[in-house]
Amino acid sequence: MSTAVETLGIEERDKQRLRIWLRLLKISRQMEAEIRERLRVEFATTLPRFDVLAALYRERDGMKMSALSAALMVSNGNVTGIVERLVSDGLVVRVPVSGDRRAMIVQLTDKGREEFAHMAKVHESWIASMLNMLSDEDADVLVDLLDNVQIKGVRTR
Amino acid sequence: MSTAVETLGIEERDKQRLRIWLRLLKISRQMEAEIRERLRVEFATTLPRFDVLAALYRERDGMKMSALSAALMVSNGNVTGIVERLVSDGLVVRVPVSGDRRAMIVQLTDKGREEFAHMAKVHESWIASMLNMLSDEDADVLVDLLDNVQIKGVRTR
Repeated sequence: MSTAVETLGIEERDKQRLRIWLRLLKISRQMEAEIRERLRVEFATTLPRFDVLAALYRERDGMKMSALSAALMVSNGNVTGIVERLVSDGLVVRVPVSGDRRAMIVQLTDKGREEFAHMAKVHESWIASMLNMLSDEDADVLVDLLDNVQIKGVRTR
Repeated sequence: MSTAVETLGIEERDKQRLRIWLRLLKISRQMEAEIRERLRVEFATTLPRFDVLAALYRERDGMKMSALSAALMVSNGNVTGIVERLVSDGLVVRVPVSGDRRAMIVQLTDKGREEFAHMAKVHESWIASMLNMLSDEDADVLVDLLDNVQIKGVRTR
């Protein structure tokens, strides 16, 4: 392979990167669609709601609304509306922040923590089955390669 | 590595697949955000519009509106509205389908073909620079690994 690689012209190198991008885009869109569908069918829930619960599950002490919005990978849903529904479903509480009158911290309730732990376990098994064509060794290589990819934005340069 | 791999328990295997998913999701979201921003700044255009032009560029004979909607990877934009703007900008024409009174085929004009060819070249260079931390050999391995990943949906099983 290395001879072929060394003789790659610039154009072919760019095309190979474009191939990577088109495949990444296709796979992530398909997986996301699949996860949305399964969340809907099996848990009657949505991806933005799942993501809010996931963020709160990771932060045991709770999060300010602003931090919660910033942390979400799926941010199109309106976080305020989602949190309000979670409060009325008893999965989340809002508590005042000492020293900051206007801020509220959002936390999972015990019920919320329990429900999310169950959903997360099932969610993990969906991902594992979607990616079960990868051998353990391939999976390790893929994690390492993807770890190298750090995208810098226009605005940060 | 192979000894470590052979002793992976089921839980650790699932976690490794979850890691892959979280990295795929993060990278594709970051790249997509970057591409949207650059299309806006450098070409005053949008990703759905770029995707419509890309689909039409690949199909020299043009596409029915229904096929165009189905082909788009980014389908949230409303295709009808996008096509109407492209027609009034002179990049696209709608022509009747012989034998089907109600159907129309959408085609790029010469101007549309030329403009898209230019944008596509620049777009490819953005992708190449975003992924320039990958060596040629890593890029080849990544393309092969991603080719193995075929996601099957709930509805097709």
